[in-house]
Amino acid sequence: MKKVPGSTIGRLSVYLRLLDEVKAEGVRTLSSGELARRAGTTAAQVRKDLSLFGTFGKRGVGYSVPQLSAALRSILGLERSWRVVLVGAGQMGRALLGYQDFRRQGFTIEAVIDSDPAKVGQRLQGLEVLPLGRLEEILGAGFDIAILAVPAGAAQAVADRVVRAGVRAMLNFAPVKLQVPEGVALKTVNMALELEGLSYVLANATAQRAVRQEG
Amino acid sequence: MKKVPGSTIGRLSVYLRLLDEVKAEGVRTLSSGELARRAGTTAAQVRKDLSLFGTFGKRGVGYSVPQLSAALRSILGLERSWRVVLVGAGQMGRALLGYQDFRRQGFTIEAVIDSDPAKVGQRLQGLEVLPLGRLEEILGAGFDIAILAVPAGAAQAVADRVVRAGVRAMLNFAPVKLQVPEGVALKTVNMALELEGLSYVLANATAQRAVRQEG
Repeated sequence: MKKVPGSTIGRLSVYLRLLDEVKAEGVRTLSSGELARRAGTTAAQVRKDLSLFGTFGKRGVGYSVPQLSAALRSILGLERSWRVVLVGAGQMGRALLGYQDFRRQGFTIEAVIDSDPAKVGQRLQGLEVLPLGRLEEILGAGFDIAILAVPAGAAQAVADRVVRAGVRAMLNFAPVKLQVPEGVALKTVNMALELEGLSYVLANATAQRAVRQEG
Repeated sequence: MKKVPGSTIGRLSVYLRLLDEVKAEGVRTLSSGELARRAGTTAAQVRKDLSLFGTFGKRGVGYSVPQLSAALRSILGLERSWRVVLVGAGQMGRALLGYQDFRRQGFTIEAVIDSDPAKVGQRLQGLEVLPLGRLEEILGAGFDIAILAVPAGAAQAVADRVVRAGVRAMLNFAPVKLQVPEGVALKTVNMALELEGLSYVLANATAQRAVRQEG
């Protein structure tokens, strides 16, 4: 089995999204150059990425948009639906539950878990919030992906339990770097940290200007 | 002005969040070891990160939680409020508008822009959706950060206009890699891409198991 870098997989996701957009505009074929331009990369990169998975497109004609879209969907494992458990029914968890695009892409949140007795038993988007104490029992039903939307201080302990319960893939929204054993796929999304990174740059640029004006 | 790596800034955000969590639990001092443990890093890393910005903590006592928290807030530029414009009032944009934590952290969405005539004029969280045609005029009022929540195919053109209008920091939620000139800070958040990265790993692992069983 060939090892494909995560950056390549990320670009395949971008290509797929762009193909779906041009498909909606009625476009049937697209050159590697045009796909590259829209993806903010080069035609050579597009061809190299795709060559890892087979032969696509015809010289002088370009890629068939529906064919390449279907191929990318298959490569990315998006032809099937993945069972997702959401741990954390706070503000972030609720926003994620309401995010319909997940379902459209085959990621179906089928259970919601929270530690707060005040939240347990509530119904959110048709799902009853279940207690954290039952996590192992719930995950025993077979989940593919766990989304963690818990406070930073609780995230590692929850992640450990999720891994022990046999879940092999995790999307972490808690603002903390989690440790997971080899063989468990972990991705982290952190809007607050990204915003604070921007804030740091802005504050620093402002300070630099002030220094320059003083000097 | 010293150049601080983005990874350090990311960890400072994590430390700040953990300090705020333990502060809420009534903890007044924290050792570098304990902060490191909660952040999933080492005490040496914590001390190295903080040493870039000054001297914090007392040997044998640890860090004063409120003091270090205030210092990190200042370093990250979180003592002031940043004016944020949101471009894109689709599903993602609406979720972001409803995300109260942004405001709590000093990021105040003060304008919402969309290209869809059906959305323009609607009120979302007290803000009137303004037309994309007026983007330059709106940004002329002085915004620090633009959040882009537009379709992938539209994102680069919108980013170009935002940059020309003088905004120096952008948080991109569109599933595409944007090109921005030097001096403009860009961060990207992409939940769909992260999920598809997990999906690829899961699909690949399943295929590997099937190959092994056949072999």
